[in-house]
Amino acid sequence: MNILPKSLLDLIEELGKLPGVGPRTAERYAYYLLRADPHISSKLASSIATLHEHVGYCSKTFALVEKDQQLSPLYTDPIRNKQLVAVVEEPLDVVALERTGQFKGTYHVLGGAISPIDGIGPEQLHIAELLQRIEDDHVDEIILAMNASVEGESTALYLQKQIGDRPVRITRLARGLPVGVDLEYADQITLGHALEGRQKL
Amino acid sequence: MNILPKSLLDLIEELGKLPGVGPRTAERYAYYLLRADPHISSKLASSIATLHEHVGYCSKTFALVEKDQQLSPLYTDPIRNKQLVAVVEEPLDVVALERTGQFKGTYHVLGGAISPIDGIGPEQLHIAELLQRIEDDHVDEIILAMNASVEGESTALYLQKQIGDRPVRITRLARGLPVGVDLEYADQITLGHALEGRQKL
Repeated sequence: MNILPKSLLDLIEELGKLPGVGPRTAERYAYYLLRADPHISSKLASSIATLHEHVGYCSKTFALVEKDQQLSPLYTDPIRNKQLVAVVEEPLDVVALERTGQFKGTYHVLGGAISPIDGIGPEQLHIAELLQRIEDDHVDEIILAMNASVEGESTALYLQKQIGDRPVRITRLARGLPVGVDLEYADQITLGHALEGRQKL
Repeated sequence: MNILPKSLLDLIEELGKLPGVGPRTAERYAYYLLRADPHISSKLASSIATLHEHVGYCSKTFALVEKDQQLSPLYTDPIRNKQLVAVVEEPLDVVALERTGQFKGTYHVLGGAISPIDGIGPEQLHIAELLQRIEDDHVDEIILAMNASVEGESTALYLQKQIGDRPVRITRLARGLPVGVDLEYADQITLGHALEGRQKL
């Protein structure tokens, strides 16, 4: 016998597929949606339903765009320096870098990182397109802005090799202490990076 | 200029209304739905959209039921003892009690707890219906299974008064140490309850 009605159980199961959502959290979300104004849940339902129709990828940078746009405004905006390209793993990394308000170049989204365990090889990433952009846009600096993970590091290494002796400066994001961290609690690898990359005052 | 396409931003905003979901988590959920098989997101969308159509409340116990059912199977099942009623605040509390596998009585969902701050008075709860059930079903024990919060306590007190001198035993859930907690880390109120309610071995 079901303690909860089947349609609620179905919803709990679907919500439980979201990343990091366990059965209890899914129950809480489902019950919230049930109690909330039907307007709220119907808006959420239609946003989810139309998501795939409305969102596409920029054909140059592979950032997320409205389906009817070919190119991301972050690429076409004339303020943006096309000779400076930050290479990131995922579309949301663009949002994180934009939040700094410090970057005026363009982006290139790889669509992941090389990860043999997950079956992701270099050919599944937008690497050929990046090499093409280096030519087409006369790129003079590539910032490798991968995650500070093993996969991120190996992807950066691979890209460095692929770019080879093309006349382009390759840089990567600094490694060091994040803001607000006590030296005492910093892990040894981070502290090692911070020492290695120390800067003259 | 929007960094992300508007339909994705809309979805992030909608997801951010779920309880305990901040903007970063909402972004993560939205991006997951975008990357996942469209089948997954369309199933989720339709589960949410049809939720209100399909879920209703039992007219006796106010537990959640399929819309086309009048009464909860937890009430109609002949195995269930209608003379024993556990009174809970919310429908999901029924799930928690059912998980113990120890309760063979029926439930009564109040639909909340008395909370003047949130503008919830006794008249908004299903209290009159509970009093009616005491008569109709010849109830001989009411278990007050409210949350161990101030609101829960005052609701329990209020119910006790309302039930008054009707010939029914009123009990409440035991207070004491939860499983797996070190005495050292138990808060003083819990420990006080545990002392007060100590049992002979």
